Amino acid sequence: MAVELHPALEPFAFLLGRWVGEGQGRYPTIDGFTYGEEARYQHSGKPVIEYAQRTWSLDSGAALHGESGFLRPAGSGLVELVLAHGFGIAEVSEGSIRGQRLELHSRSLVSTPTAKAVERLARAIEVHGSELEYRIDMAAVGQPLQRHLEARLRRQS
Amino acid sequence: MAVELHPALEPFAFLLGRWVGEGQGRYPTIDGFTYGEEARYQHSGKPVIEYAQRTWSLDSGAALHGESGFLRPAGSGLVELVLAHGFGIAEVSEGSIRGQRLELHSRSLVSTPTAKAVERLARAIEVHGSELEYRIDMAAVGQPLQRHLEARLRRQS
Repeated sequence: MAVELHPALEPFAFLLGRWVGEGQGRYPTIDGFTYGEEARYQHSGKPVIEYAQRTWSLDSGAALHGESGFLRPAGSGLVELVLAHGFGIAEVSEGSIRGQRLELHSRSLVSTPTAKAVERLARAIEVHGSELEYRIDMAAVGQPLQRHLEARLRRQS
Repeated sequence: MAVELHPALEPFAFLLGRWVGEGQGRYPTIDGFTYGEEARYQHSGKPVIEYAQRTWSLDSGAALHGESGFLRPAGSGLVELVLAHGFGIAEVSEGSIRGQRLELHSRSLVSTPTAKAVERLARAIEVHGSELEYRIDMAAVGQPLQRHLEARLRRQS
């Protein structure tokens, strides 16, 4: 069922679609790693973008991480993100959109009793033509905010 | 790609699939309403269930609400939920599984600057054969915890 794009989403239309590619992760407390990723940005007619991604091991294909939630335009170039992470944290972030680039930083991070605590997250997402690049910085397990993930995805549809 | 169910998910296997049905909502501050709903409970081989649902107006078909996140078995009959709501809140809940019934209550609810604040959520999800029933209680906008949503869905696949 095709529904009309809500006018509030017009500045975000460049994100819509299914994206697939590869990324790499690093952190002082772990070995560096690479991963495959699929991300979907969709809408249902409301002024909110449904976002979900999953990653997998490039060696075995086994599932690694998953996250899903919603991007919410908040007017005047502002944007909000509510996101659930499969490893047991829930995130509220806020930031801005400028052209085809979003920058978001965490406002609240809450976790389940069994999850690793994450103190801060900051992400930048940028689209050039059919390529989406993102970078996620993280402060966790006592380490200062620093680069954690970088990936480059290509639009599939 | 079919992947093997993680052993930690075996007690939750009754939830897996796609469910469709109808529900009704009420709250002292709003008119009662009914809605259509589709919910999906899936897995990718990890010890976590990917959950997403969306609801729509039974009159117009227009999108109403959406939420997505993850159910996490936490051992000894305990379960955790991390969930993002399209209207701008992120939820961490915890609870228990007994037979084919889950009961969860919120531990942390965080919201974006533009979202309505919700103070508490409690949900019960129960499956009988091919029917899933849930009830969600909510404390919000100064009202005490009380019934907000009830729905009955049928398994589609």
